[in-house]
Amino acid sequence: MKQYVTEHQSPYLDLSAEVSEVLYKGKSEFQDIEVVESKEFGRMLVLDGVFQTSIKDEFMYHEMIAHIPLFLHPNPKNVLIIGGGDGGAAREVVRHPEVEKVTMVDIDGKVIELSKKYFPEIAKAMLENNPKLTVKVGDGIGFMAQAEAYYDVIIVDCSDPIGPGEGLFTYEFYKNTYKALKPDGLFVQQTESPFMHQPLIQKIWKSVSEIFPITRLYTTFIPLYPSGMHCFTIGSKKYDPLTWKPNRAQTFKTRYYNEGIQRSAFVLPNFVKELLYGEEK
Amino acid sequence: MKQYVTEHQSPYLDLSAEVSEVLYKGKSEFQDIEVVESKEFGRMLVLDGVFQTSIKDEFMYHEMIAHIPLFLHPNPKNVLIIGGGDGGAAREVVRHPEVEKVTMVDIDGKVIELSKKYFPEIAKAMLENNPKLTVKVGDGIGFMAQAEAYYDVIIVDCSDPIGPGEGLFTYEFYKNTYKALKPDGLFVQQTESPFMHQPLIQKIWKSVSEIFPITRLYTTFIPLYPSGMHCFTIGSKKYDPLTWKPNRAQTFKTRYYNEGIQRSAFVLPNFVKELLYGEEK
Repeated sequence: MKQYVTEHQSPYLDLSAEVSEVLYKGKSEFQDIEVVESKEFGRMLVLDGVFQTSIKDEFMYHEMIAHIPLFLHPNPKNVLIIGGGDGGAAREVVRHPEVEKVTMVDIDGKVIELSKKYFPEIAKAMLENNPKLTVKVGDGIGFMAQAEAYYDVIIVDCSDPIGPGEGLFTYEFYKNTYKALKPDGLFVQQTESPFMHQPLIQKIWKSVSEIFPITRLYTTFIPLYPSGMHCFTIGSKKYDPLTWKPNRAQTFKTRYYNEGIQRSAFVLPNFVKELLYGEEK
Repeated sequence: MKQYVTEHQSPYLDLSAEVSEVLYKGKSEFQDIEVVESKEFGRMLVLDGVFQTSIKDEFMYHEMIAHIPLFLHPNPKNVLIIGGGDGGAAREVVRHPEVEKVTMVDIDGKVIELSKKYFPEIAKAMLENNPKLTVKVGDGIGFMAQAEAYYDVIIVDCSDPIGPGEGLFTYEFYKNTYKALKPDGLFVQQTESPFMHQPLIQKIWKSVSEIFPITRLYTTFIPLYPSGMHCFTIGSKKYDPLTWKPNRAQTFKTRYYNEGIQRSAFVLPNFVKELLYGEEK
């Protein structure tokens, strides 16, 4: 009898991956957690029934959420990661020699613990106690509200806006993010699929645009996520992705990211432009 | 009781779409055919259990298979479409004022007939008897073997390399495609997912590279297809997508394609470059 893990990508669409072994099934204070060995994607983390990351495609997400904002900033020294409990974003961030200090704040200590146990490749920087990295278990929303003009880059590596991630998609949160950034700082947030979650993206775009002088959206392929078309929203005080020029060498290997991608990810199909700017642009 | 249509995207991965109505279920000489009304993607065409096209995302596929090669060629007059029985590629091709003649050859007359009936938006050019368009029911492989130095652009809008599409992925077929093109002609073929079908893509790349002086791959988002990351391979005798400059105005509206996309679609993530060129490039 075959065993599957299924995500309801929408009320009308299911993605089911065959599973050879369920490694963990339990609950934290905040959510249901599953770790499974899937035949297509390798090991997978599932939170509240939503596929979070997999060994096979995690590089696409983690490289794109980390390297795009970090290379956009000419000298990112202090980086804050909100969420990102699996450690994948932190793993990519610490690779930048310019980065001196990375603070990661995830609300769910259980996710961090399980990632270290079951996803050592992803949790690498946490497992190795990378000296740049400080991991805190706590509320990212409250943490952000305390911070002031301190960070060069903030990465919001959150889950869907349902459950513990909800408060990370509000106007109030973006206001505090602005406040937490230095005068030339910028932030990025994963903002779901432009094909499937259009009202959400428009809401985020509106909030971020009201607060930040530069708001941009970029897309990337993430096979594990609904539609495979995923986007990230950037709010920036000074540096504009659309006029980006290489400002330093890439000193490490990547499997997805490159200089061409840094530019091309911001080239949007017409239907996405219309979503953000309306019909005429 | 809910009803679903399911594609086995791989032996280990299923995508299931809830269906409100099955409009047609039958067999042609070549394949099983289903037309269903799905709640997520709207009306869908399913051949041998594989999702072919949907009302919601068909523009992404059809614009990208048609406009990338057509705008790459400075003056495409004669266009051949192999496959493309739903009529979507033809619909996009006839929009180019430069195009004088489009010949479409699909092996399965039943697909053409059902597309006209159930997908009038997609089959538009066929339904309107567009004067540029000639539709033939027949074997594309044999048709290609007969043609000589006649076409500016050839579009191979085929299904998977299993079943009737199989012969459209061979060295022999690419040889005949080269022969059928004018001295500055080019062709494009849908070549599946760089995330899921790597050996196939490498095989095609090798064959096309041996025959054509310029071989390029481009990617696009297609939510209906496995992984959402789809690619197309171009073999070209003269025009190189990597040095493309706009050579004429776009005189019609598109929902996905634009000038930026014409360039950015050819910017490949590192893992795709490695697939094609090996580790070092």
